[in-house]
Amino acid sequence: MKYPNNLKKIYINPLTHKNRGMDLESELNESNEYYREMDKALIYKKPTPIGVTDVSYSPKGKIIERGFFKEPSTLDYNGLYRGKYIEYEAKVTQNRTSFPLANIHPHQINHVKSVLRHNGIVFLVIKMNEIVYLLKGDDFLAYIENHERKSIPYEFIKENGYMIKYSYRPTLDYLKIVDEIYFKEETE
Amino acid sequence: MKYPNNLKKIYINPLTHKNRGMDLESELNESNEYYREMDKALIYKKPTPIGVTDVSYSPKGKIIERGFFKEPSTLDYNGLYRGKYIEYEAKVTQNRTSFPLANIHPHQINHVKSVLRHNGIVFLVIKMNEIVYLLKGDDFLAYIENHERKSIPYEFIKENGYMIKYSYRPTLDYLKIVDEIYFKEETE
Repeated sequence: MKYPNNLKKIYINPLTHKNRGMDLESELNESNEYYREMDKALIYKKPTPIGVTDVSYSPKGKIIERGFFKEPSTLDYNGLYRGKYIEYEAKVTQNRTSFPLANIHPHQINHVKSVLRHNGIVFLVIKMNEIVYLLKGDDFLAYIENHERKSIPYEFIKENGYMIKYSYRPTLDYLKIVDEIYFKEETE
Repeated sequence: MKYPNNLKKIYINPLTHKNRGMDLESELNESNEYYREMDKALIYKKPTPIGVTDVSYSPKGKIIERGFFKEPSTLDYNGLYRGKYIEYEAKVTQNRTSFPLANIHPHQINHVKSVLRHNGIVFLVIKMNEIVYLLKGDDFLAYIENHERKSIPYEFIKENGYMIKYSYRPTLDYLKIVDEIYFKEETE
């Protein structure tokens, strides 16, 4: 892929970085890149939906002169793993005691329900208190459907979520957890 | 979803339009919207990947002041149907005798192979000579791997593709063809 001169692709060196400085999105992108290289899964971050209101033309192609970000109605990442459809959203909160539900749009909550109904794998990846958790879509829905609160307490996430550990490569081996949760019979 | 005043959502009236004036992308978007309303499938067009080089801030949110379109490495549409991962690319050609392969990037050809390897459903939707065809990923690969030509002859598409007929709603009921090809045993 070609990039204009003023935009550089960021190369990550996990050895010097210790990954702690990376944000969750970069960690997941790096992990998905690794999974693709190893031909383990095809999972991509979806581009942020934008509306283009003005363009111009240069010898290198069309240039966006003005645009805006749209509100997403699906989750951030989707793809194919072991013949199954997989989709998830990644969120970081600095809040230490609860995960604010304002982080997830109502359209996205409905989308989680739809993916479950259509037999896809769907979950949230939540980074909180420097720990990364996988929270299954049905556990997430169970909480919000039974509570009036505008946030999910950390206790709930700690008890119901699955911890994703940091490693060398991939940075976040979340498919190991997916195997344990969603492919248990086949793995055993 | 909110749209700024200078961008209007396009409403389509298939009765007066007869669909012929619509472009293939709109026809597929309308069909996917219908499938979601009917809770039949969750298939979306992926946003075009862009690189943002300059932003500004307004009371309504972040505005893109400059950006460019990136080359896609996956296909245009993906989603979930009957528990299976589905992905496809939609292309129109005005060429009456052959489909130019310049329409499909090398990264995308590799991606078609990957989706097949991981047991996903993958195909092309080609509009040519006013007819819409579904060409299976493996038929597409079989052709390009066995021919040196830079285009696929119309004869090949006519013989190996499946015609998708126009209807009232959805405009293009391509999942009917998907049922016939990929879910034959279950449907019978």
